[in-house]
Parts: sequence; structure tokens; C-alpha cells
Amino acid sequence: MRVLITGVSGFVGVRLARRLIASGHQVAGTYIRDRPELEGDIELHEAELLDPPSLEATFRKVLPEGVIHLAGLAHVGESWQRMHEYFQVNVLGTENLLNAAAGIPVVVASSAEVYGLVPEEEQPLAEDRPVAPQSPYALTKAAAERIALAAGARVVRSFNLVGPGQSAAFALPSFARQLAAIVAGRHAAVLAVGNLDARRDFLHVDDGVEGYERVLVSGAEGEVYNLGSGRARSIREMLDLLVEVSGAKVSTRVDADRWRPVDLPLLRADAARISRLGWAPRRTMREALEELWAAARSSS
Amino acid sequence: MRVLITGVSGFVGVRLARRLIASGHQVAGTYIRDRPELEGDIELHEAELLDPPSLEATFRKVLPEGVIHLAGLAHVGESWQRMHEYFQVNVLGTENLLNAAAGIPVVVASSAEVYGLVPEEEQPLAEDRPVAPQSPYALTKAAAERIALAAGARVVRSFNLVGPGQSAAFALPSFARQLAAIVAGRHAAVLAVGNLDARRDFLHVDDGVEGYERVLVSGAEGEVYNLGSGRARSIREMLDLLVEVSGAKVSTRVDADRWRPVDLPLLRADAARISRLGWAPRRTMREALEELWAAARSSS
Repeated sequence: MRVLITGVSGFVGVRLARRLIASGHQVAGTYIRDRPELEGDIELHEAELLDPPSLEATFRKVLPEGVIHLAGLAHVGESWQRMHEYFQVNVLGTENLLNAAAGIPVVVASSAEVYGLVPEEEQPLAEDRPVAPQSPYALTKAAAERIALAAGARVVRSFNLVGPGQSAAFALPSFARQLAAIVAGRHAAVLAVGNLDARRDFLHVDDGVEGYERVLVSGAEGEVYNLGSGRARSIREMLDLLVEVSGAKVSTRVDADRWRPVDLPLLRADAARISRLGWAPRRTMREALEELWAAARSSS
Repeated sequence: MRVLITGVSGFVGVRLARRLIASGHQVAGTYIRDRPELEGDIELHEAELLDPPSLEATFRKVLPEGVIHLAGLAHVGESWQRMHEYFQVNVLGTENLLNAAAGIPVVVASSAEVYGLVPEEEQPLAEDRPVAPQSPYALTKAAAERIALAAGARVVRSFNLVGPGQSAAFALPSFARQLAAIVAGRHAAVLAVGNLDARRDFLHVDDGVEGYERVLVSGAEGEVYNLGSGRARSIREMLDLLVEVSGAKVSTRVDADRWRPVDLPLLRADAARISRLGWAPRRTMREALEELWAAARSSS
């Protein structure tokens, strides 16, 4: 299949492109500003979600048979200050993409954050539960989902993907980068952390990209799929495992700037629907953190 | 025409129902909880935007030939704390309403707040300007607009309507209520105020309802219409005029709770598009404030 990935230079995009190429698909990708370092057989196009002619030109060149729409703004904390940009890119940008892709299967990346504050006894979270966004980011993703589903697209609600290549604005990459500076002797052995009690459903990024591939190949039109492991772990558990992997000896210090206005205490996926497409996670969290750590060390 | 008004018990709904009846339309309205005190020839139905069967039942009973969708949550300040409810009612509720109204002309009430922070030299605001919401309320309205326009509905971006019947959670009704308590001798002659420097485009509520009627009767499918006077006044000017109308002698005290996280300094409409439908404001601001004051006094 000829597949177009939007936001191919992002954390998930780079890995997804490699995976689809390995599976035998023809792959093209869009980026803005940062041309990704992707070796091998991939066409790259600079295209701006907020500029419909640049999207349409890309579609005319690529003639995709399937689209995975990853491009967007993805940081919950930042979205409180940049609400209008989050709206434009995530909502209007998705609408523009869907218009350009009319008639072609599209998978739209959304987020578990759309579920909002759900009591532990009502989790794991099933897709049919009404969404209840609690941050501007979640609100833009929930709105984009409605537009996507109305257009017949498939929606993937991604839980927390872990691996190398994610921005250090997120917790685990930030911890890995701080640990690398500590191990290199450039920083005192104290990690700045936010809310370690929050629990999330973590997944190796390569299990995540296999989920996107599976939904593109086998998913149903107008359907929503959770992409998570079904298991919740606290940020503290993840940090402890990362510290163990790094071999560093560190203490932690809570940093007020790392707290979000609303931090959801728990997000855990009911992954039954995507499992029925034949998907299952195959990698351990230790592998994900080892890869994250290796990348942080080599770039420090 | 048989017209269904959602949210008929609200500030605008009550006045709009009276106006449409006076124009010779058959009018039905939906409400939740507060059954409106509407005399005369109007059918009332309890219906919940988040309950599609109750909407569909209402449509089957009323068989409307046009819909004006006013129901929703409308307070910018409150939306920061109740984001998920704003999303559900304003976005999912509008989607449900549009589904129930498939094939019938629908006018969806939106807000000037969707324009966001726009420099004074780029105002008045024309409808084609990209929206840039800066509050959760504005974000939900901007998202609902996209869904409405995709369904062929008409969107009215209302600027600030003034008159009796608006909740005292808004600035002018709050001032009027405080003034009434002062004049009645129940309160010291000090008004609690928020940001008086913000400038808005104020319109008599009855000019507003004539705008909604005009867009229903003569508007174009999938089109957006600003509903404003084209003139900006500061909240302070409006307060001064209201105090003059009341005859009270008062001082003001700034109250931190009345400041919003983001308060847009100026919103002024370019009303050319709705003017071309034959609409123009016919009432003065003094009339609007006199009516607001009379209502506040009689209910105090």
C-alpha cells in the first residue's frame, strides 16, 4: 500500500515509517521545518497542515492509498498557554488533512487524555465511554476526533508511548537526559521531577507503531481504537526502572514547574478492540527504557 | 415557518421566541430543568442535548422547518474549571442536535470569543479571519462551528447582547443587581467590578434576536455571520451609563475573582455580511440598560 504519514519527523513518525517500509509498504511523509533523518526508500514532502494547497499538492504527488495522520501539537502542559495554536493545528489542521484525503482511508492519532478524570473503579477505559477532556490539548484532540469520525476516518487513542526520540518536554525523556548529564559528571545527582504518582498505560513505541499499522490495514471506518497495554504503572515505577537501567545513583527533587494544572491520576486502556484486529504488545518496558537510555547517553 | 429553538429558557431564547411568534412563525422550544415562563402560542419540550433519543422525540413531535440552536454553556470564566462539561454540551450536544435536524436549516449560536486576541489595528473582525480561541469556552464554540459548517448549518457569532434576563454571572447583570441592592439600601454604595478596560461590541438583545431571525430566514447554508453593531465600548462606559440610568451614587472596587485568566482587550464586529441580509440594529444602548435596570429593580 502507498501510505502517507503526516508528521513523519516526530517521535512516532520516524519509527512508523521504518516499520511500514519493513512491512513492504511504499511510504511518503510530510514534515515542517525539521527534515527527518530517514534512510532508505521514503519520499519526504514539506507540507503545512494549515495551508490546504500545500497538502493538496502533496496528495497529488504521492497519490496515497492510506494516510496515518500523526502531525499535531502534543504537549498537555504547553497547551494551557498556546490554546489557539493547539486549536488551529489539531482541529483545523485535521479538518484540512481530511479534506485533502477525501475517499482514502485515514487513521487519525488521538490521545487517551480525551477520557479525562475517570475514577479507578471505572477503568480500564473502553472506547465507548463518553469523552471528558480536562485540558486544552485533550479538548482539541476530542474535537478533532469528532470531525475525523464524521468523515469516516479511524481514530487511534494512543496511551503513553516510550522509546528514543521523544521531546524532553515529556517526563521520561527529561529524566533520561538529566540522568545522562549526571552520569557524564555534568550535573549533581539530583533529578528534577513532577508528579510521580500519576499512573499511565505505557507501551514501547514500536508496539505503538505496529498498532497504527494494524488499524490502517484492518481497522473499520469511523471506529475508535485504544492503543495501550491494559496495564498501569506510576511514573515513579518507570523512573525507578530507568534509574536502574542507567546504573546511576540519584535522589529526586520535586519541581513546581513540572506540575500541570490538571494532572489525571490514572489512564489505563481497555485494549480489547485493537486486540481483536490481531495486535498485541511484544516488547518489555525494560527494552523501551534501555533504548531511551542508550539514545540519551549517546546524544549527551 | 415552524421553528424550534433549543435553550428557549435562556436569556436570548425567551426574547427570540417572542419575536418569532410576533413575526407569525409557529414556535416550539426545548429546555432542561427550568421551564420558561413563556405566555402565548408556544410548545415547550424538555430535551437534553446529550440524550439523542430525547432530541429525536422532540423533532418527531415538532416537525420543525427551521432550528435555532441556542442551548449551551456560555460563561468564559467558568469554562476553565468545567472544561469537560463545556466540551460535552457545546461540542457533542451540537453534533447531536445537527444529527437530529438532518435536512432542516439550522442556525447555530457561536460567539465572538472564537476570534481570540486580535490587535486593534486588525479590527473590526471579519468572518473570514482564522479563529484563534483563547479560552476553553471559545475552543468549544470554535469546534462546534466546524462541525456545524460541515453539516451545512449557518453560524451566528454573537457579540455581547445586553438586556434583562441574563445571568448575574455576567458583568452587566451583576452590576445591575448590585446597584439594585444599593438603591434598596441593602448594600453599601460600592460596586465590585472586574476588568473595566476590556472593550466589547454591545447590542440590545432584541436587535440580537432579530439577527438570528434574519439569518434563519435569509442566510446561506454553511455561512458564518457576525452579529454585532460594529461599535466598541468599554465595560467602564457601559457601567457609567448603567449607573446614570439607575440614579445611584456609587464607587467601585476591583475584585480579583472577577478577572479572567485571559481577558481579550477588544472584540469589535465587522457586521457587513449580516447587514447585506437586511439586518441593522434599531435600539439604543440606553434602552437596553434601562430594561436591564428595570428588571433588576423589580426582582430585587
